[in-house]
Amino acid sequence: MPTKITLTEDEVPRQWYNLAADLPSPMNPPLGPDGNPVTPEMLAPVFPMNIIEQEVSQERWIDIPRGILDLLYRWRPSPLHRAKSLEAALGTPAKIYYKNESVSPAGSHKPNTAVAQAWYNKEFGIKKITTETGAGQWGSALSYACALLGLECKVYMVRISFDQKPFRKTMMNAWGGNCVASPSMETHAGREILAKFPNTPGSLGIAISEAVEEAVSDPTGQTRYALGSVLNHVMLHQTIIGLETKKQLKKAGIKKVDTIIGCAGGGSNFAGLAFPFTYDKINGADIEIIPVEPASCPTLTKAPFMYDHGDVAKMTPLLPMHSLGHNFIPAPIHAGGLRYHGMAPLVSHAVEEGLMSPMAINQLECYEAALLFARTEGLIIAPETSHAVAATIRKAKEAKEEGKEKVIVFNLSGHGLMDLYGYEKYMAGELRNNELTQEEINASLDQIKDQPKAFVKKSGRW
Amino acid sequence: MPTKITLTEDEVPRQWYNLAADLPSPMNPPLGPDGNPVTPEMLAPVFPMNIIEQEVSQERWIDIPRGILDLLYRWRPSPLHRAKSLEAALGTPAKIYYKNESVSPAGSHKPNTAVAQAWYNKEFGIKKITTETGAGQWGSALSYACALLGLECKVYMVRISFDQKPFRKTMMNAWGGNCVASPSMETHAGREILAKFPNTPGSLGIAISEAVEEAVSDPTGQTRYALGSVLNHVMLHQTIIGLETKKQLKKAGIKKVDTIIGCAGGGSNFAGLAFPFTYDKINGADIEIIPVEPASCPTLTKAPFMYDHGDVAKMTPLLPMHSLGHNFIPAPIHAGGLRYHGMAPLVSHAVEEGLMSPMAINQLECYEAALLFARTEGLIIAPETSHAVAATIRKAKEAKEEGKEKVIVFNLSGHGLMDLYGYEKYMAGELRNNELTQEEINASLDQIKDQPKAFVKKSGRW
Repeated sequence: MPTKITLTEDEVPRQWYNLAADLPSPMNPPLGPDGNPVTPEMLAPVFPMNIIEQEVSQERWIDIPRGILDLLYRWRPSPLHRAKSLEAALGTPAKIYYKNESVSPAGSHKPNTAVAQAWYNKEFGIKKITTETGAGQWGSALSYACALLGLECKVYMVRISFDQKPFRKTMMNAWGGNCVASPSMETHAGREILAKFPNTPGSLGIAISEAVEEAVSDPTGQTRYALGSVLNHVMLHQTIIGLETKKQLKKAGIKKVDTIIGCAGGGSNFAGLAFPFTYDKINGADIEIIPVEPASCPTLTKAPFMYDHGDVAKMTPLLPMHSLGHNFIPAPIHAGGLRYHGMAPLVSHAVEEGLMSPMAINQLECYEAALLFARTEGLIIAPETSHAVAATIRKAKEAKEEGKEKVIVFNLSGHGLMDLYGYEKYMAGELRNNELTQEEINASLDQIKDQPKAFVKKSGRW
Repeated sequence: MPTKITLTEDEVPRQWYNLAADLPSPMNPPLGPDGNPVTPEMLAPVFPMNIIEQEVSQERWIDIPRGILDLLYRWRPSPLHRAKSLEAALGTPAKIYYKNESVSPAGSHKPNTAVAQAWYNKEFGIKKITTETGAGQWGSALSYACALLGLECKVYMVRISFDQKPFRKTMMNAWGGNCVASPSMETHAGREILAKFPNTPGSLGIAISEAVEEAVSDPTGQTRYALGSVLNHVMLHQTIIGLETKKQLKKAGIKKVDTIIGCAGGGSNFAGLAFPFTYDKINGADIEIIPVEPASCPTLTKAPFMYDHGDVAKMTPLLPMHSLGHNFIPAPIHAGGLRYHGMAPLVSHAVEEGLMSPMAINQLECYEAALLFARTEGLIIAPETSHAVAATIRKAKEAKEEGKEKVIVFNLSGHGLMDLYGYEKYMAGELRNNELTQEEINASLDQIKDQPKAFVKKSGRW
């Protein structure tokens, strides 16, 4: 049996899967500042209408346009690997598989939605796309996609990552993208935050405010904003990961999957792998589905399900999601892509429905897992991805204790070649854990206690 | 017609191709310091005997052991892409294909021979492998291979690259390898050079001396040295590139290839793509085969074919090759992997036979080509690879002028994600060309004019 399971281009799915069609209870709509649901028209200055239609769609299957498939074929289908060397090192009876999304030109799963969004924007006549980026994976991916389609690209990169990973900017520049550190002096939102907190490490919430502001301020109307995670259409575009994986597992002769694992910051790589399996779970399959987050930013495991803004300046609608509060600035961990105060509404909702079992893991355990993975499977993974590997190792050890031959599948969301500074610090013994305390969570949530709460979490943690 | 042509694992070649079997005239043997041919036994302290047997083999086809195939399958077969976006940007009637060797876990073609060499060393009972690395591609690849096979790995990295690319060291460390800057204080050769030239940027020639010295000095006899290029067995292991490419071109319906292009430092990625096509040329096919080197280190285009040492300390045998002289220290260009005073004897010999048409290109043209490639094909390539792209663009423009629908195939030997410093400098306008002058070449060659010259180049340039 080969350790790498591949597909042909003909076997790549032709449709994305939309979990919204199958949730046991309907999702709550995004709300405007007045507490009323936002209409598609209200989002029109931010996103092109073809993407807004996807965002609100309740269709289970949505066709992937031929033009997008042709772009995806540049690196897809991605391989599924059996982690035999890792299994041997752990002495586990579990069968561990990983879907390798690091093979894309930008090095992560992000191009799956970047090329789709850029393509839809171009179809709609847009000339320039603005966005934010945390670790730099998304900004790189969108710069890449815009290069392929001849669009202008402007990226606001969270300051702490901009400083830790200077070559991410070079990468975006190589693809013709324009990258600035956020908060910047280029927007009203950025200037306001810099005036208050000149030394802020920045956050995804701040960077989103700046990117949205630039998009809606273009007097020609030819600029739109793109988000690399969180929203429904982004989750949708990523489901190609899980749909391919299902076909590959079938080829490998796997009849039953026990555990699905992905790291979760905004939620998109996790959703991409997990949603097609969540469909099976809704239809009766016995699968444990685990989003893994950093202990320093425990959105799903410790924050309430509530209505909150996606950004600091409250330019986005109120979204129904797990949130640590839109003012929350996560610790400057190296897994920059997981430093987000909120979580995708679709993932948040599925967790509330009991379809998923979130887990939070500390930084040191994740780096230890990443090194073991490098020295067994040979791939140097992104710090974000290390959370998925750490959870996989926990579950594989559990299977060993139980003596069960479980099938565990995780998403290898990106490689770590642009993130070696964190590895260097870890190997030099200079990193520590940053577990967030309940007091810190309460303090962050207190700051937004007067904001409209049209929906209160069932389990009533807040 | 798809722009990406893939193979199944079953279609991966089961044998390597050995050009030595088909050269019109026999190769000259390596010589010892006394001017007599070295015997396999004399090489035994440096390499394991199973590799030495390959080094001197005259067999045309050599079986790839199953254990090596299983390692290669971790990323092979690699895709062949049609560069349609680049063609469109150039407005050329040429069909451009590139073999994408950047998909390996170490990011280049180097693991093709690294896993083979590590496997043969392990078979022979070796516990530790020493080596040198220029840009870091080879040191990373060997660290990766040693991690997979549980061997110790020690890498001497050329100082200038060590400083320009600090994360290459982290990468090797992540795989468990030990990387030091060369010249180092750890060897006699290193200390001697540092005493004379404390600020030297180092060179591959110096680093080889150090790595060989450490291997042969191990009193337990369980350490051997591995070379990432130049030698016959390295060229052999890389021919899987060209053999796969032939099958892929056939799948794409290509009946005749006009031009084969690869960048050449020590010669291995070039040889890997080119040798299977050189076989066709020897058998009558009309193919132009172009090794491309930097104008700052023009071994094939300007240096004599002679006997010279592979390293500065003269620890290696005298090899029949094009050489700028083993004391030559190339300019600190960013294409560190092309900074070598010599060239593979097999490539050198084939050039002398008229089978190949070398070309030298300046740094700025190469970076310009790399940016065009990133913005059309979407891949950020290594500075070494940019030489192949620059040559490809020259040939594609030539085809446009001639109005001919030529088929050009080049080897995309590695990605540039670890080499963004050079891109940054180029985009900031801080790089310049470093074309080597004839006076500089003569000065370097004069330094070795008393060394044994058992063989004099036919065309008598020296």
